[in-house]
Amino acid sequence: MNFPSKLIEDAVSEISRLPGIGKKTALRLTLHLLRQPETFSQTLTEAISKLRTEIQYCKKCHNISDQDVCSICLGARRDRSTICVVEDIPDVLAIENTSQYNGLYHVLGGVISPIQGIGPEELKIASLLSRIDSQKSDDPVQEVILALSATMEGDTTSFFITRKLKEKGIKVSTIARGIPIGGELEYTDEVTLGRSILTRVNYNLE
Amino acid sequence: MNFPSKLIEDAVSEISRLPGIGKKTALRLTLHLLRQPETFSQTLTEAISKLRTEIQYCKKCHNISDQDVCSICLGARRDRSTICVVEDIPDVLAIENTSQYNGLYHVLGGVISPIQGIGPEELKIASLLSRIDSQKSDDPVQEVILALSATMEGDTTSFFITRKLKEKGIKVSTIARGIPIGGELEYTDEVTLGRSILTRVNYNLE
Repeated sequence: MNFPSKLIEDAVSEISRLPGIGKKTALRLTLHLLRQPETFSQTLTEAISKLRTEIQYCKKCHNISDQDVCSICLGARRDRSTICVVEDIPDVLAIENTSQYNGLYHVLGGVISPIQGIGPEELKIASLLSRIDSQKSDDPVQEVILALSATMEGDTTSFFITRKLKEKGIKVSTIARGIPIGGELEYTDEVTLGRSILTRVNYNLE
Repeated sequence: MNFPSKLIEDAVSEISRLPGIGKKTALRLTLHLLRQPETFSQTLTEAISKLRTEIQYCKKCHNISDQDVCSICLGARRDRSTICVVEDIPDVLAIENTSQYNGLYHVLGGVISPIQGIGPEELKIASLLSRIDSQKSDDPVQEVILALSATMEGDTTSFFITRKLKEKGIKVSTIARGIPIGGELEYTDEVTLGRSILTRVNYNLE
């Protein structure tokens, strides 16, 4: 594509480096920015620069944070005896939005994937173990919930962490796999359906 | 959605103001920016700020330009006797990329649309007429090609401009409507097909 201006060309090439945005979309966004008042791009660029320069990660759970330790780890009403291990930051957001969990988190920053060259050392697994040790005296961790993807990599990571935690005598659980609420039986894949039968739970009339 | 950090919240809300980008995509882009080296967001924000502060519009054809007058209007090898009228800047890019047109352009900045409150005064129609007048002595414009969308608004605008130009005795043409190259007859909508029969052209064996 030939651009009438170097400025357009630069903006398009920078914007199209973002994931899921191609040259055509980048051009559409660029022209949109030009049509908006100048404050629009100003607030946008300020938000992006600030994001990158001022962001911090919680030194306990590795979640995004405005301070040294995040608001979840500092939360007075959180249950410190339970840690939910997740792959990445969006997972924390997703679980928080369910309002069904009141414990702490631990963000691994990925899962073990030999193909991509990600071993246990690249993840925050050692940090999880030392965190559990340091909490031992005042707030002992009783349960670790593994909330990783139901993929081979996720399962490998779960297995690896479980083995480490069993040595410490900590209860390890994993989130339930099964048919989604509202999902129809006949359209569920057989692996999920099979697993949901094997891991059936008692039906309680409450 | 609850965000763990004000910085994330600001970035997501700013990015999601862009067209076609919702909250979820904005969050994905924000987290991507965080994962990249700092130079990534730096070059991105610089390109966007520069774009908005340094961009200029050609005072002749209203296309985007790095200078006062754009490279097409200044082009020594362009045919000054033909002006192609388009709706917006992407249309200039699209026609330029065909390499089939060697004349000048005129960017209207939209089409007449009473529903959206866009009348002929909001568009660069007066500027087109005065441009033709000022070129009269040295480079008289002989033909104006209307390359507007084949919509009701586009047709209204074409009609309005044609009436103004006919007063000046300038030849007005419009780009051909018909079946796209490679398009199959049976899948073409009847309006296009009907129009392509009415506006059939002589078949030349060259």
